[in-house]
Amino acid sequence: MAEEKLPRRSEDFSAWYNEIVSRAELAEHSPVRGSMVIRPNGYGIWELMQQALDKMFKDTGHQNAYFPMLIPLSFITKEAKHVEGFAPELAVVTQGGGKELEEPLVLRPTSETIIYHMYAKWVQSYRDLPILMNQWANVVRWEMRTRLFLRTMEFLWQEGHTAHETEAEAEAETLQMLGVYRTFMYDHMAMPVICGPKSDSERFAGALRTYAVEGLMQDNKALQAGTSHNLGQNFAKVFDLQFQSREGTLEYAWNTSWGVSTRMVGGLIMTHSDDDGLVTPPKLAPVQVVIVPIFKTDVEQAVVMGAADAVFRELKAAGVRVKLDSRDSMSPGAKYYDHELKGVPLRMEIGPKDVEKNTVVIVPRVELSKEEAAKPGRKQKLFVPREGLSERVRQLLDALQSQLFDNALARREANSVRGTTSYDEMKALIERDAGFIYAGWCGSAECETKVKEETKATIRVIPFEEFRSAVQPTHCIVCGGEARHEAVWAKSY
Amino acid sequence: MAEEKLPRRSEDFSAWYNEIVSRAELAEHSPVRGSMVIRPNGYGIWELMQQALDKMFKDTGHQNAYFPMLIPLSFITKEAKHVEGFAPELAVVTQGGGKELEEPLVLRPTSETIIYHMYAKWVQSYRDLPILMNQWANVVRWEMRTRLFLRTMEFLWQEGHTAHETEAEAEAETLQMLGVYRTFMYDHMAMPVICGPKSDSERFAGALRTYAVEGLMQDNKALQAGTSHNLGQNFAKVFDLQFQSREGTLEYAWNTSWGVSTRMVGGLIMTHSDDDGLVTPPKLAPVQVVIVPIFKTDVEQAVVMGAADAVFRELKAAGVRVKLDSRDSMSPGAKYYDHELKGVPLRMEIGPKDVEKNTVVIVPRVELSKEEAAKPGRKQKLFVPREGLSERVRQLLDALQSQLFDNALARREANSVRGTTSYDEMKALIERDAGFIYAGWCGSAECETKVKEETKATIRVIPFEEFRSAVQPTHCIVCGGEARHEAVWAKSY
Repeated sequence: MAEEKLPRRSEDFSAWYNEIVSRAELAEHSPVRGSMVIRPNGYGIWELMQQALDKMFKDTGHQNAYFPMLIPLSFITKEAKHVEGFAPELAVVTQGGGKELEEPLVLRPTSETIIYHMYAKWVQSYRDLPILMNQWANVVRWEMRTRLFLRTMEFLWQEGHTAHETEAEAEAETLQMLGVYRTFMYDHMAMPVICGPKSDSERFAGALRTYAVEGLMQDNKALQAGTSHNLGQNFAKVFDLQFQSREGTLEYAWNTSWGVSTRMVGGLIMTHSDDDGLVTPPKLAPVQVVIVPIFKTDVEQAVVMGAADAVFRELKAAGVRVKLDSRDSMSPGAKYYDHELKGVPLRMEIGPKDVEKNTVVIVPRVELSKEEAAKPGRKQKLFVPREGLSERVRQLLDALQSQLFDNALARREANSVRGTTSYDEMKALIERDAGFIYAGWCGSAECETKVKEETKATIRVIPFEEFRSAVQPTHCIVCGGEARHEAVWAKSY
Repeated sequence: MAEEKLPRRSEDFSAWYNEIVSRAELAEHSPVRGSMVIRPNGYGIWELMQQALDKMFKDTGHQNAYFPMLIPLSFITKEAKHVEGFAPELAVVTQGGGKELEEPLVLRPTSETIIYHMYAKWVQSYRDLPILMNQWANVVRWEMRTRLFLRTMEFLWQEGHTAHETEAEAEAETLQMLGVYRTFMYDHMAMPVICGPKSDSERFAGALRTYAVEGLMQDNKALQAGTSHNLGQNFAKVFDLQFQSREGTLEYAWNTSWGVSTRMVGGLIMTHSDDDGLVTPPKLAPVQVVIVPIFKTDVEQAVVMGAADAVFRELKAAGVRVKLDSRDSMSPGAKYYDHELKGVPLRMEIGPKDVEKNTVVIVPRVELSKEEAAKPGRKQKLFVPREGLSERVRQLLDALQSQLFDNALARREANSVRGTTSYDEMKALIERDAGFIYAGWCGSAECETKVKEETKATIRVIPFEEFRSAVQPTHCIVCGGEARHEAVWAKSY
């Protein structure tokens, strides 16, 4: 534990991120450039994300399925926009079983093509619609500049794919699933994303409309954390996904697709963690409470371990993900350091005096504003009676979950700039990484491109009503023409 | 529903299997030869398998992780036996991002090489051991002769990989995980597998010892349903997986690996299903109970649907996976046919008279020997009072789970031949697909090869004590020499 301190976020955000991922044993580079090994601490977060999302998908009527990873190259090239978007990122299998393949196969960068090819076989009439499927899978996109979790050559994700009778139904599904992502990110990730459509230039390759949820990271860069696409009839037309309508006519189906990935783990890290290490929202923490027993003598050890074990069993029975850290080669202080680094939400200290007084000490990973404040320069310490402990732990976990959301929301708002009308001011704001810049946009690709070229910032979303500024801009911040939308600009991952 | 009847198992087992997979909508061929689309009905079974196994893995101290799918070709070639076993089955990526790769990458056929390469970085001392990890992943083996679920180019599986201080620990882990598979197959799949080591020739490429669980299918062919390998120090030596021992010396770690795959879904089908379609053990049935409402008039419909909906909600609240089939375009008879085909364990019929009498009719998918027998030529019908219904449903699901196991065990035993001492008789038995042939074996590769060449049967396992015959053979059935083992021979998938 004699490791150096983490780099500070304020000094080198990127080095800080990399060190957290490495020292908290979340993930590591694999020998194949750009691909990642997700270690148990990182995978545990992903598993909890999966469980929560999977339940939400099923509650909204979706079923899981699995489609093959290998797709004929000719499938990808069928949809013009799609191939344009994905061709540069393809990994191609040219040999199998010791022979050259007649047709190369690509590793799925996303599965629209193979899935709508199959749907076309399954759908004859409107009675076969809607199809509401999801798959949990790995995908491969040949990325040159990779970062663990945020951008890797292979990543894990889910991709929902649906087929509907009408455009209205497809649009409702697209928005419903964006809403599911938003709810998940608010309630589980404690990440107050903003939501809305993307501009045309940021649309998914082959979609009619793309909607996104965007988080603001602590370095004031945006992270696109999930997307939901209304694909229109683009893929249906290419893959002959037709059905006999209620009126007896032959129609193309309307498709949607929507996905989130292991990238969310990166977003979670960059939203909540601090200079002491990882911070994990309790709902997604593989270990929610760690018990650290403190003793010097053998007699103390016997007493303390007995009490610690009883608490462990009580919390476990109450459904808390609890760990008793009984490593004897390590001092309590070294354990504190380790669990802070690894982001355990609540640390519980039990020493001989605690046993005597029938209490425990709980140290929340992040200070809770509704509890007695910490002494200056110290961590917040809560003295909790043994009686009713699991109840209190549940309540503290909930409080921490809310606290993280409140902190993140306050930070996002402190780093959201509204009311700017001068393009020069906007450029200065972007230059100093001011965060989300809300400003008017005429809707033209020219103005959008100009900002991107001059500042590297892009339109993250055109926010839905509830995310818009109270006072709506009237003019485009770039050209001064009439504003068609309020847009949110930021540099992004 | 005017489809033809299924092929009969007795007439064409293979066609029967294919038709069940297709008509029950479990899986389908993809446009890429040898790879498979797992449809929601099939994936639902796999998900329940995963959930049960994942819990068992965690209860035995394992953590999930994820390692990359793409492995440098040079890794595979490091372990001589391993490359010999897997080289002919490799799929190779030679292009990425539009360029030829300097070193080709293979799609993992299994992950020993990449995983032990990473373990070598994580392990310094005995304190870092054991490592107990598992991953759920897709793997690719270039197969020429594929069958849905049983043998496909890409399949889904889990692979456990562990590292230990001593050979004894590794052996204990290997056997523990074989035991987990056995328990899962008995308790969840209702599949009475036999267990034991494989002969040397059937060992995993690179292992010291391979143990397997083998089921007997209804066509009397064996199915290897899971394997657990003691890898010795073979991979540790190749990947420099060394640790400082308690004595201060530098030692190679001892590894194990163990896996089961979507092949189990094929095993489940071939163990239980019948000429009416799929039969699913209740514990692995995505839908355990289907409610079919029966009515003619609008008044009846209102009454019956009200009752059906109340039963639906009650069962759902009781944790039963229940479905209310309210499709109005289909007659009750057509629904019966459909749900039998799809293997729903219990069908519940509710008509106006049932509502009046405050009962429901339950038809188990397979006759329960402890309930009143069916009338000749009819299905077993149980008249169940509405009062206490969820309790009774739970009990019937348990009874059906046990019944399927008992039936499968009785069938396995009826098709296990013991006491044969003549090689000619053995050949005749194999010729007529008699099932598991228990016989003496001298332990020589020559005798094993001879049987394989002359009959196509192989040694499935050398059974553990509890699976051995009461009277142990004294002589090798092939050469007549002294028997070192009792072996179980069969043709296999």
